[in-house]
Amino acid sequence: MSRESTRHRPAAAYMFTFQAQYPDQPGMLASIASAVAECGGNIGEIDVVRSTPRSILREFHVSAHDAEHAGEMLARVKALPGVVVKSAADRVFRSHRGGKIEVRNKVPVATLRDLSTVYTPGVARVCLAIAKDPAAAYQLTTRGNSVAIVTDGTAVLGLGDIGPAAAMPVMEGKSMLFKAFGGVDAWPICLDTKDPDEIVAIVKAIAPGFGGINLEDISAPRCFDIEERLKKELDIPVFHDDQHGTAVVVLAALFNALRIVKKEPSDLKAVVLGVGAAGVACAKMIMAAGVTNIVGCDRSGIIYKGRPEHMNSMKEWFADHTNPGRLRGTIGDALEGADLLLGLAGPDLVTVEDIKRMNRDPMVFAMANPDPEIRPELAAPHVAIMATGRSDFPNQINNVLCFPGLFRGVLDVRARDINEEMKLAAAYAIADSVSKTELSPEYIIPSVFHTTVFKNVARAVSRKAIETGVAERPDKKPAMVFI
Amino acid sequence: MSRESTRHRPAAAYMFTFQAQYPDQPGMLASIASAVAECGGNIGEIDVVRSTPRSILREFHVSAHDAEHAGEMLARVKALPGVVVKSAADRVFRSHRGGKIEVRNKVPVATLRDLSTVYTPGVARVCLAIAKDPAAAYQLTTRGNSVAIVTDGTAVLGLGDIGPAAAMPVMEGKSMLFKAFGGVDAWPICLDTKDPDEIVAIVKAIAPGFGGINLEDISAPRCFDIEERLKKELDIPVFHDDQHGTAVVVLAALFNALRIVKKEPSDLKAVVLGVGAAGVACAKMIMAAGVTNIVGCDRSGIIYKGRPEHMNSMKEWFADHTNPGRLRGTIGDALEGADLLLGLAGPDLVTVEDIKRMNRDPMVFAMANPDPEIRPELAAPHVAIMATGRSDFPNQINNVLCFPGLFRGVLDVRARDINEEMKLAAAYAIADSVSKTELSPEYIIPSVFHTTVFKNVARAVSRKAIETGVAERPDKKPAMVFI
Repeated sequence: MSRESTRHRPAAAYMFTFQAQYPDQPGMLASIASAVAECGGNIGEIDVVRSTPRSILREFHVSAHDAEHAGEMLARVKALPGVVVKSAADRVFRSHRGGKIEVRNKVPVATLRDLSTVYTPGVARVCLAIAKDPAAAYQLTTRGNSVAIVTDGTAVLGLGDIGPAAAMPVMEGKSMLFKAFGGVDAWPICLDTKDPDEIVAIVKAIAPGFGGINLEDISAPRCFDIEERLKKELDIPVFHDDQHGTAVVVLAALFNALRIVKKEPSDLKAVVLGVGAAGVACAKMIMAAGVTNIVGCDRSGIIYKGRPEHMNSMKEWFADHTNPGRLRGTIGDALEGADLLLGLAGPDLVTVEDIKRMNRDPMVFAMANPDPEIRPELAAPHVAIMATGRSDFPNQINNVLCFPGLFRGVLDVRARDINEEMKLAAAYAIADSVSKTELSPEYIIPSVFHTTVFKNVARAVSRKAIETGVAERPDKKPAMVFI
Repeated sequence: MSRESTRHRPAAAYMFTFQAQYPDQPGMLASIASAVAECGGNIGEIDVVRSTPRSILREFHVSAHDAEHAGEMLARVKALPGVVVKSAADRVFRSHRGGKIEVRNKVPVATLRDLSTVYTPGVARVCLAIAKDPAAAYQLTTRGNSVAIVTDGTAVLGLGDIGPAAAMPVMEGKSMLFKAFGGVDAWPICLDTKDPDEIVAIVKAIAPGFGGINLEDISAPRCFDIEERLKKELDIPVFHDDQHGTAVVVLAALFNALRIVKKEPSDLKAVVLGVGAAGVACAKMIMAAGVTNIVGCDRSGIIYKGRPEHMNSMKEWFADHTNPGRLRGTIGDALEGADLLLGLAGPDLVTVEDIKRMNRDPMVFAMANPDPEIRPELAAPHVAIMATGRSDFPNQINNVLCFPGLFRGVLDVRARDINEEMKLAAAYAIADSVSKTELSPEYIIPSVFHTTVFKNVARAVSRKAIETGVAERPDKKPAMVFI
């Protein structure tokens, strides 16, 4: 964030506020103002929060270069004799105060009659209706619209294994996106265990309250096993977003990129740099879409059958299923004559020279966040299509485009699985949300604020679920007869 | 519900609606109206929902005696040739349509800047702040205001072991009460396992996302072990509402009843009829308040040390800790000279003759729902204080009076435990919410819609948590310094 700010934003665009309490004596305010000024900060508004004969509590609005710069100022202010900093937060932290999501009642509890309707004794008849017909839970409880966002906090964003408590803000953010873009009620379940058996057992146990399971930020290779077992053992849909959400959106972007460069999937040589959960899922998905020539790479270079070192189960999969030409060498060697680079690894792993070795009209999706595998301003002059994971460049590959609409479509028809056909349908729906007239090298994928992409995805996913026979409610809105 | 309706409500006060689709031909509407009339139902409004040249969909609003009566009518209508009933539901089922609770976003997601604040990249700094200082989760996530309502569905209301899916409507109702009366965000976790070890492991694993655990409708004696282990192993408060919520409210009612009959806890002979989880908890709680002469009873009569049959671990506890006079005999024998009857068993287990054997100014809390141990209209002439679990008689012992305020108080100071002192403080706060001028034999306990009882409970619980040293945040609103 801070790096991004200094790179792409005006010098003093980072706003923060702090509240300081101090004896209300002449000179105190001036000393605080000086401390901020000496650090190069700009004070805007100053409000009085509370004033007593002995002390005053003021709120200062300050602009700084970035969080680090704000921290310096704050340290200076804290060090002033008599000054106590009561609170200090920027926009990001203020938005998180008290959490970002809440539970709301959909019907009132204002009278005894309300109480006897939503709780005892009325509720007993609803319980009995579900006991008699378990499917009724989808009509009579939140189960029909709810998803558990399950994580163990082992692979959170680019931060790694920060644990379940520290993962909460991401899961709450995900819940917000589920609601804002899909109308889905998703609650975070952050697990204090890394044991795959335990995670599987827990998710199975909590399943009766949810209509679907979204696995999130669980490190590879455990995530594969966990997802596979849960898909088999549960009759509600299970989806590991880091794998499949990313893969669906990559495929959507690829579909539109191919329209521009006028190539077919079967013509492509594709290089996947970064062979973790997302890398494997993307490789599988473009394979299913007809790409046959795929080469996987990690920091040690090309992955091939029999590579003696730096292997793991995911790389073994790549060795077994990709690299038909048995290539060896560096990422640069892999890119020789390649049409597509999918970067899912880390910052600055690819050079302009590497890019220049690619085929005519190359497509580069450099998706590491916040810093891509190659900086877009360096690569862009040499490629036909440039996409990243960032919102401040064209063509953002953002899996927010997939999961809210996907789960909306799944819940609408009560699909018991999310199969390959449904994911493919989601990818087409995302791609087709960009109209022929809108499509351009700088607009291959719709924005998150595209007006219909989520509905398009939901509709396509529902339809495909019905077609492939995994929808329990192909009629979408079933009769509700309860007396 | 149906029994209650016929007993205490006018003949045709049960309203329901149904939607019927049929060919739009002369005579069809009349045949439906006749079918309803022949069953003794009254049709009110009739709306047209949808009309095509071929068929019409109409909604009928009908009054009946009760659900059973409505069912009869519906069967008649369904049997009419050409008529398809599309939906039918009464107020209770309509209130449950689609579930009673939802997740809501507390901050907007309307712009790319919002997205980068609540999700990546901004959220990463919030995650790191929590990774550095786990306590920050209470300020920066919903953890500071959230509770998991955990059940295995084995002892739901009076319905017994109906399973986790069918328990959902009760848990959602509970969540609504948490929100409406305590401002607490509580999410239902309905577990598909009855194994105490598994339940303990699961609750421990999901704890990082919640500020407290409310155990609910877990059958005895497993509930004791589960609660005890979780209290020991977790550093967030754990509360089994069926035990302690009930006990707190019973004690509150007892405090005020004693003021009226002018007796002291130490003077009382108390009979506890029903020795399940709530019975044990109530006995322990009135014991802690100074009642020494307690006699437990089940359907087989008085529980005593060495009773040869119908024993279990809860009854062994009663045998070991109560019945100082070593009484044997029936519930009637137990009530001989008793001052207080706590009924937590089932309908009509006590006769008027039994009640007549009690001491002067007897207090009867007959709390089985919906049908008490003795019907209040029968007992009332012979007792000083009559209380039930029902909202349609005076003195409703309703544990809704406890848990929302209790958890509000707990979360406000981040208490890591709910100890005996806090529960006692809650009971006093509930009792004292009835002012001296309001207090009467028919008003010993505040109504659920009493204006301040929840705040009173919250304040008392917070204060006692601080006094007993279990509050992590005795300052209530800690400084929030995050840059």
